[in-house]
Amino acid sequence: MKVLVLNGPNLNRLGKRQPEIYGSTTLEDVEMFVAKRAEELGLDVECRQSNYEGQLVEWVHEAADQKWAVIINPGAYTHTSVALRDALVELQDNNGFVEVHISNVHAREEFRKHSYVSDIARGTIAGLGIQGYLLALEYFASQAS
Amino acid sequence: MKVLVLNGPNLNRLGKRQPEIYGSTTLEDVEMFVAKRAEELGLDVECRQSNYEGQLVEWVHEAADQKWAVIINPGAYTHTSVALRDALVELQDNNGFVEVHISNVHAREEFRKHSYVSDIARGTIAGLGIQGYLLALEYFASQAS
Amino acid sequence: MKVLVLNGPNLNRLGKRQPEIYGSTTLEDVEMFVAKRAEELGLDVECRQSNYEGQLVEWVHEAADQKWAVIINPGAYTHTSVALRDALVELQDNNGFVEVHISNVHAREEFRKHSYVSDIARGTIAGLGIQGYLLALEYFASQAS
Amino acid sequence: MKVLVLNGPNLNRLGKRQPEIYGSTTLEDVEMFVAKRAEELGLDVECRQSNYEGQLVEWVHEAADQKWAVIINPGAYTHTSVALRDALVELQDNNGFVEVHISNVHAREEFRKHSYVSDIARGTIAGLGIQGYLLALEYFASQAS
Amino acid sequence: MKVLVLNGPNLNRLGKRQPEIYGSTTLEDVEMFVAKRAEELGLDVECRQSNYEGQLVEWVHEAADQKWAVIINPGAYTHTSVALRDALVELQDNNGFVEVHISNVHAREEFRKHSYVSDIARGTIAGLGIQGYLLALEYFASQAS
Amino acid sequence: MKVLVLNGPNLNRLGKRQPEIYGSTTLEDVEMFVAKRAEELGLDVECRQSNYEGQLVEWVHEAADQKWAVIINPGAYTHTSVALRDALVELQDNNGFVEVHISNVHAREEFRKHSYVSDIARGTIAGLGIQGYLLALEYFASQAS
Amino acid sequence: MKVLVLNGPNLNRLGKRQPEIYGSTTLEDVEMFVAKRAEELGLDVECRQSNYEGQLVEWVHEAADQKWAVIINPGAYTHTSVALRDALVELQDNNGFVEVHISNVHAREEFRKHSYVSDIARGTIAGLGIQGYLLALEYFASQAS
Amino acid sequence: MKVLVLNGPNLNRLGKRQPEIYGSTTLEDVEMFVAKRAEELGLDVECRQSNYEGQLVEWVHEAADQKWAVIINPGAYTHTSVALRDALVELQDNNGFVEVHISNVHAREEFRKHSYVSDIARGTIAGLGIQGYLLALEYFASQAS
Amino acid sequence: MKVLVLNGPNLNRLGKRQPEIYGSTTLEDVEMFVAKRAEELGLDVECRQSNYEGQLVEWVHEAADQKWAVIINPGAYTHTSVALRDALVELQDNNGFVEVHISNVHAREEFRKHSYVSDIARGTIAGLGIQGYLLALEYFASQAS
Amino acid sequence: MKVLVLNGPNLNRLGKRQPEIYGSTTLEDVEMFVAKRAEELGLDVECRQSNYEGQLVEWVHEAADQKWAVIINPGAYTHTSVALRDALVELQDNNGFVEVHISNVHAREEFRKHSYVSDIARGTIAGLGIQGYLLALEYFASQAS
Amino acid sequence: MKVLVLNGPNLNRLGKRQPEIYGSTTLEDVEMFVAKRAEELGLDVECRQSNYEGQLVEWVHEAADQKWAVIINPGAYTHTSVALRDALVELQDNNGFVEVHISNVHAREEFRKHSYVSDIARGTIAGLGIQGYLLALEYFASQAS
Amino acid sequence: MKVLVLNGPNLNRLGKRQPEIYGSTTLEDVEMFVAKRAEELGLDVECRQSNYEGQLVEWVHEAADQKWAVIINPGAYTHTSVALRDALVELQDNNGFVEVHISNVHAREEFRKHSYVSDIARGTIAGLGIQGYLLALEYFASQAS
Repeated sequence: MKVLVLNGPNLNRLGKRQPEIYGSTTLEDVEMFVAKRAEELGLDVECRQSNYEGQLVEWVHEAADQKWAVIINPGAYTHTSVALRDALVELQDNNGFVEVHISNVHAREEFRKHSYVSDIARGTIAGLGIQGYLLALEYFASQAS
Repeated sequence: MKVLVLNGPNLNRLGKRQPEIYGSTTLEDVEMFVAKRAEELGLDVECRQSNYEGQLVEWVHEAADQKWAVIINPGAYTHTSVALRDALVELQDNNGFVEVHISNVHAREEFRKHSYVSDIARGTIAGLGIQGYLLALEYFASQAS
Repeated sequence: MKVLVLNGPNLNRLGKRQPEIYGSTTLEDVEMFVAKRAEELGLDVECRQSNYEGQLVEWVHEAADQKWAVIINPGAYTHTSVALRDALVELQDNNGFVEVHISNVHAREEFRKHSYVSDIARGTIAGLGIQGYLLALEYFASQAS
Repeated sequence: MKVLVLNGPNLNRLGKRQPEIYGSTTLEDVEMFVAKRAEELGLDVECRQSNYEGQLVEWVHEAADQKWAVIINPGAYTHTSVALRDALVELQDNNGFVEVHISNVHAREEFRKHSYVSDIARGTIAGLGIQGYLLALEYFASQAS
Repeated sequence: MKVLVLNGPNLNRLGKRQPEIYGSTTLEDVEMFVAKRAEELGLDVECRQSNYEGQLVEWVHEAADQKWAVIINPGAYTHTSVALRDALVELQDNNGFVEVHISNVHAREEFRKHSYVSDIARGTIAGLGIQGYLLALEYFASQAS
Repeated sequence: MKVLVLNGPNLNRLGKRQPEIYGSTTLEDVEMFVAKRAEELGLDVECRQSNYEGQLVEWVHEAADQKWAVIINPGAYTHTSVALRDALVELQDNNGFVEVHISNVHAREEFRKHSYVSDIARGTIAGLGIQGYLLALEYFASQAS
Repeated sequence: MKVLVLNGPNLNRLGKRQPEIYGSTTLEDVEMFVAKRAEELGLDVECRQSNYEGQLVEWVHEAADQKWAVIINPGAYTHTSVALRDALVELQDNNGFVEVHISNVHAREEFRKHSYVSDIARGTIAGLGIQGYLLALEYFASQAS
Repeated sequence: MKVLVLNGPNLNRLGKRQPEIYGSTTLEDVEMFVAKRAEELGLDVECRQSNYEGQLVEWVHEAADQKWAVIINPGAYTHTSVALRDALVELQDNNGFVEVHISNVHAREEFRKHSYVSDIARGTIAGLGIQGYLLALEYFASQAS
Repeated sequence: MKVLVLNGPNLNRLGKRQPEIYGSTTLEDVEMFVAKRAEELGLDVECRQSNYEGQLVEWVHEAADQKWAVIINPGAYTHTSVALRDALVELQDNNGFVEVHISNVHAREEFRKHSYVSDIARGTIAGLGIQGYLLALEYFASQAS
Repeated sequence: MKVLVLNGPNLNRLGKRQPEIYGSTTLEDVEMFVAKRAEELGLDVECRQSNYEGQLVEWVHEAADQKWAVIINPGAYTHTSVALRDALVELQDNNGFVEVHISNVHAREEFRKHSYVSDIARGTIAGLGIQGYLLALEYFASQAS
Repeated sequence: MKVLVLNGPNLNRLGKRQPEIYGSTTLEDVEMFVAKRAEELGLDVECRQSNYEGQLVEWVHEAADQKWAVIINPGAYTHTSVALRDALVELQDNNGFVEVHISNVHAREEFRKHSYVSDIARGTIAGLGIQGYLLALEYFASQAS
Repeated sequence: MKVLVLNGPNLNRLGKRQPEIYGSTTLEDVEMFVAKRAEELGLDVECRQSNYEGQLVEWVHEAADQKWAVIINPGAYTHTSVALRDALVELQDNNGFVEVHISNVHAREEFRKHSYVSDIARGTIAGLGIQGYLLALEYFASQAS
């Protein structure tokens, strides 16, 4: 099973933005941890990030064609992108996708409480930091076994 | 009269996504049917598709400059894009545009019931399948005559 | 295939009300255009109009019994009549119905944005003037072929 | 100037329903008071009542054709009838209409606070009992002079 | 005690509409069951059906004048008719009325959850199929004894 | 019977503000018309205007102490003043008050559709221009007779 | 068929609370009437009451295991208990349950208009006093026959 | 680190309710899987279940006193219990808690979309089946290391 | 006069939870202060606390039977318990009850702004710390004298 | 400690308005009771009343400059005055203020349930009659000691 | 061009209230900066402040009569005063007005997000501190040139 | 200090769209005026425009890295882009940003009244035409001095 890990807008700022709060872990670090855990779990993994809604939509199309499982942190597009939802719904035919959020979106602004993708996801993991990506990998590994 | 036919996000998946439901008609097929009907009606036609909101906005700018009529299926951007609305409003000075939806958006999720572009369109056609594009062409043909 | 064309309340005022705005096309004219296009398309057609919700309901019952397709402009009852909806839902077993509005209901008062019948229609055509009726006929003709 | 006085559903029950509360004045009495005051004011007047939405709509059509002023107590249809609104809007081209309510609708159920016709009326009189009809006559008399 | 059983719009379609779902019991059958149970309970009963709001309103006026108890399934008018409510409120002076729904209105569309008449009824019975009419008869019989 | 006629904020601008729209009738003119009609009807009348919520409240207290009837056009305070409502409620023990609006408040901004005083008024007259004050006088005259 | 009759919080106060309003019929009396009617109808019946949400949930579990039909007056938990709903939904596999309310919940506070259990019930009976329990028994008897 | 695993109302029905849908995994099985994984991760674990809101509140108090980490699936109380929230907030001083849902709550009824406890949790895991409990254990293990 | 002082869920944590914020006053201390002040005021007093909604409901039943006045801090049940409301309403026949909150509920989360019991209480005291209980005692003492 | 007791609009009508309901206690009486209790408690007190929002704002400014504690019954301005809120917020630096209402505002009109000042008050006392002022004095006395 | 600078309620507290936060700049200082910049720009300027809604309304009337441009910081009345709006709308005939807020109203309480005057202003400046007044002067200077 | 001036979607149409309304000032003209004023004020300035949300997000990232101040007219993305908000929030660590709108957004469609970025901006300027950009420059100049 191959897993595509997608990160949405502003996640390329991890580790650069307010390091005293978010820590100095960068997106590159996250992708390295993901790669390492995937290897341990025997999963094929690939990580991509974009700030463009259209780009994310097209990567999901690719995953649908390739029948990849997807772990996605849609960032701000979680709350505003029906286009992303419409792309992701197609994944339900295969391995589906898991929605991950680093921070606890429920403890932030009111508008972050609504997600356009949660109801079509296999499941969601939020608030558990970058552990969230690793736990999502474990989920897919458990499904594969 | 030239008509620009614009298709928004995920419409490049027609015929690939859940063919047992949506049938095997692809976007290429739709564009071929559109070209054929346009020829019958004596209309000049051009078809484009993009998953990028910014790209669609700029194509509408081009239509405004060229005084083209527009048939647009904005897909998911129907429900989320004020930018597209702000571009389309400029078309009202010329031949305006017709909003087309393949599926019956009123019979789907609640958030699909609101369109950011309907109130500035000449009109809307929804739920009549790919016939919708052809009927919109007929509308422009009847206006031109 | 026989198509019943139903017009709801106040549509008998077409051509009489504010002719400088709506033009001088009367309901009789519309019905004549409809008859002509139906003939061209090889469809059997019949037009009726009523200001009574109960009368419209009963004509829909008749269409259900006779297995007629229906084109309906429910006028004001679009926004207030659950009774009409409950009658129309029965048509889904046969050829269904198309909802037509002459004006762009989305560009008018807020209460006109909700329709009690759109979600159970085959589809809707709005804002394209009396062309809407003719395009709906074409839709049924394309379905019949 | 001729004034058509229309009373909507259940107003034929005046004087019969809970006379200890509403008094023993019947609709016939009201129509007699109206006729008498109209004569004093030099107005031509005619009174009609119906419980059918469709009938009221058609009487308004007649008033539009005849260029009559209208005093209307739409009763319950005040709160539910877009069809009546669509008919009444045509009167704005001539002498318009005055909306009258016998009881103070603002002191009753929440749903009575919204009227589908107030915003297109010349004005409204509510809560002043059957005096409301007579004051509306005086208004039209003052306009005519 | 005489009981008037009123059925509103579309209930004349019982047994004709989707018999594989609703069964083949027609309105005539229901009225026969009602007559039979009434006889067993020693009640005088009469059944009427109309698709016209105005007609139902006037039958309720008749019941008020005759001091009949009423069992009413207002069908779609449950959710839209203030006129019917205003007529029914008069029955509170006598034996009142029971509101009956064949289907479980709470398990259907959102707009069916609001009734304009429930709060002025003696009570409501919903979802128990045509048994609902018979149980309402039993209620009136128990009140009469 | 003495009637106190109160005008709220900005009504001292009548005839000065946009005379091409509102005409050249000033508040002084209105008060003169009111005085003349009151004399004809045999009513004692006094007119006051203030832009201060507190002043209006205290004048209503005076009316309560003196058992005067009140005609009030609360202007903008209609929509914002609970204080005025709490003062006016005391008038219900005597002759009550009539709420008058010169313009049709229902045809203006959304926030003008709610009045804090309508439900405790004898009644309301809106949209009939300065005739509204005179009709309110007639109402009190008819009550006194 | 065995029927479990469950009464929720505060129903043990029947007959003690405001006897001048609710009468002197106690819960014990109700349970006796229920037992008597059940015997007449040939049904096995058992009555329980609790003020604890958790207790009611567990009794519903027992009914699910035993395949008992249930008549439940959830009292205040009607409006607040998702836990009770989640338990009751399991009954749909067997004979389902009927929701009963002694008073007309639609004529009381706004928050009583929403029920967490109506949409998963066979049906509801409200406002018909303690007759409601007996009519629900009749319903189950008619189903059993 | 000791972890208390709490399951709320109806979770004792796992494996009994609709086994064709939820599978035959019982709560006992889940608790066994949890115990096994905890042992692998070197965590001390204890599982409890209750249908009583008050009982769950008191177990959380115990966890607060003992400084245990908590994994909680509050079941229906997720959506209705402020009491549980007020108890859980105290855990923030220590290791906090993780909210787990077996099903995807976002894909179910509207009222399940709001959680009273998410915003004070470390994080939430939903929709990943009973894997959710095991991933939450992993989270605490990663925190402890 | 005997006064029953009831404390709802989580109030047994007073003095234990975040003592640097709430101080070290425990529930036992509060109950001692209450007892002392009651003695000074010549009132008979009894204090109880429970985390169970059902238990609180039954203690209120006892107070109703014994005609005790009640001071209640319903804690979280303030915002969620209709069952408690339905029990408390019975107290209105006797000395009623006073609702007390230690913290200023209006300065906290949005959902704490609604109370299910305030409108049926004699009155409410909120935000004045544990003084609130003592002031409520004084209120009852002043009523008794 | 000096305490300023402010009463807002219409509170000068106490004892004059509907004495059969509110009793014959006047504002002067209330102020006398307040003075007496203040003396017993060793507090310096001053009472003022105004119907003008601007006046109340300026008295609060004076209290802020003088570092007086404030007891305020803002009357109708509770629900409409952001200006008063903005003045009162300044008191938080000193002794703060207590909000008092004579009647139970939660048992009255819907719009009285929202207060613009509660969340910035030390606390609120409502529904306990004129005792409310005296209890607020006791609160400040207990704080001072 | 003469510019009237109006400051609403509580703005006379600038520099006195929480100087550690708002700084020690007083209203007098602001008015001095305004006068200096006006002189540099060749504008005639006058500054006034009031806590009374009625006073502000009347000053706007004066500006309308004198055809002065207006810079207004309505303070709390921004959110509550329709009376002020009704006065300000008259300025649109002349130079209009600019709405200024010292703080960023969008970053504060929810109720501060709505302004009754923004939609009729030339424009708004918010959050830029006392610079806002000076920038508004520059705007009028640029219009005058 | 360097200031980056960003213009969002459709602002490249300035001067082309409806010149009879918006005038013939193009975006190039605006950028020239901005450059000129910046030079006068001693500020370093750079102007960019994009119709792509993703592009704007990345330009804001660049500004954050370079510690540039930002003036942004987000056009339609003001109302729909959480992604832009999430990028802009990072600027708060440095010189922040000012939000500018050429037209008065409060006087247009309802959906334009909400901005996703206002609450994290230094401030906002709206409705003052292209002067808005120049005043924002002045603001940054005043901060720099």
